[in-house]
Amino acid sequence: MMSIGPYSFEEYLSVVKSFHGYTAPGLAAGGVMVDLALNRMPGGVLFEAISETRNCLPDAVQLLTPCTIGNGRLKIINLGRFALSLYDKHSGEGVRVFVDAQKVRAWPEVEAWLFKLKEKREQDGQLLLEQIRQAGPELYRIDTVLVKPQLLGKRRSCIGCCNLCGEPYPIDDGAICRACAGKTPYLSR
Amino acid sequence: MMSIGPYSFEEYLSVVKSFHGYTAPGLAAGGVMVDLALNRMPGGVLFEAISETRNCLPDAVQLLTPCTIGNGRLKIINLGRFALSLYDKHSGEGVRVFVDAQKVRAWPEVEAWLFKLKEKREQDGQLLLEQIRQAGPELYRIDTVLVKPQLLGKRRSCIGCCNLCGEPYPIDDGAICRACAGKTPYLSR
Repeated sequence: MMSIGPYSFEEYLSVVKSFHGYTAPGLAAGGVMVDLALNRMPGGVLFEAISETRNCLPDAVQLLTPCTIGNGRLKIINLGRFALSLYDKHSGEGVRVFVDAQKVRAWPEVEAWLFKLKEKREQDGQLLLEQIRQAGPELYRIDTVLVKPQLLGKRRSCIGCCNLCGEPYPIDDGAICRACAGKTPYLSR
Repeated sequence: MMSIGPYSFEEYLSVVKSFHGYTAPGLAAGGVMVDLALNRMPGGVLFEAISETRNCLPDAVQLLTPCTIGNGRLKIINLGRFALSLYDKHSGEGVRVFVDAQKVRAWPEVEAWLFKLKEKREQDGQLLLEQIRQAGPELYRIDTVLVKPQLLGKRRSCIGCCNLCGEPYPIDDGAICRACAGKTPYLSR
């Protein structure tokens, strides 16, 4: 019986559905990967997480560890790789779990999903989840890593009010806030 | 009785504690803000979310809406402002909820927290939560917004294996993956 953190595989999928909206294959694979990483972390270590992709994997981290995007213990560094690491918040020492591109070839539905060989509507979602479950840890590899010191710890900036929009912002950003400096995602009207 | 999405204020704080790790003031304020935004969205609209900060607010969005960082419906565009928007995924029309820097002045513990006038250990956490609860919606303002068209929809890249690390990556990134191109967060050893 495969377990994912404190859950059976089936229980985990139902937690995934309620948080993520549907039982995405990326969360099934991600669950196995987070579980592998957790099992390699020494007990009692205050750890943080990096997800190397924005897709799916961050939600597996959020569901299975104390690290969330809003509490700052999960960072997304979008490298386009389906990989994550857990590391000691202070020393940066940790483990990285990533996809073994060769081993994936033995599981055709997983391969087709991961390498986007099929349109989403052509995927056999049930078979895909079943292959991810059956393959278990064998699709992944684990390395030890050391996170760069400049990524550890937090900056803390003083807060002022932007001279243009009037909203509170970190004054380290300059005379006006980043939105007023041209980074706004909204059209002006 | 203030409610936050489907929860009473107290129920919401306990959901916050279990996901975020502790009852952070940013999630209390964020909960009120997400609730305000949700109430302004027309029913039946498939919406997405932008958080303009990495701190706390993304977790309020994830707890109270179907938008998560891993399912792609929540984007963090870090402008350093404590603000969020919910918008129609297709048209980009939506609402933005942000802090009213003037009104916050009437609530000293909220002001001290938001403008970082006190060290964390000097904050009165209970009083702060109580002021956020009592002030309710009055600390915030709401605008309609239109999200830039280039931020709507998804790019989809073909996947190949990186010639250096061998891992799957989006080939739109170039001949090698972004990590091998120098963006790795890990020290080599």
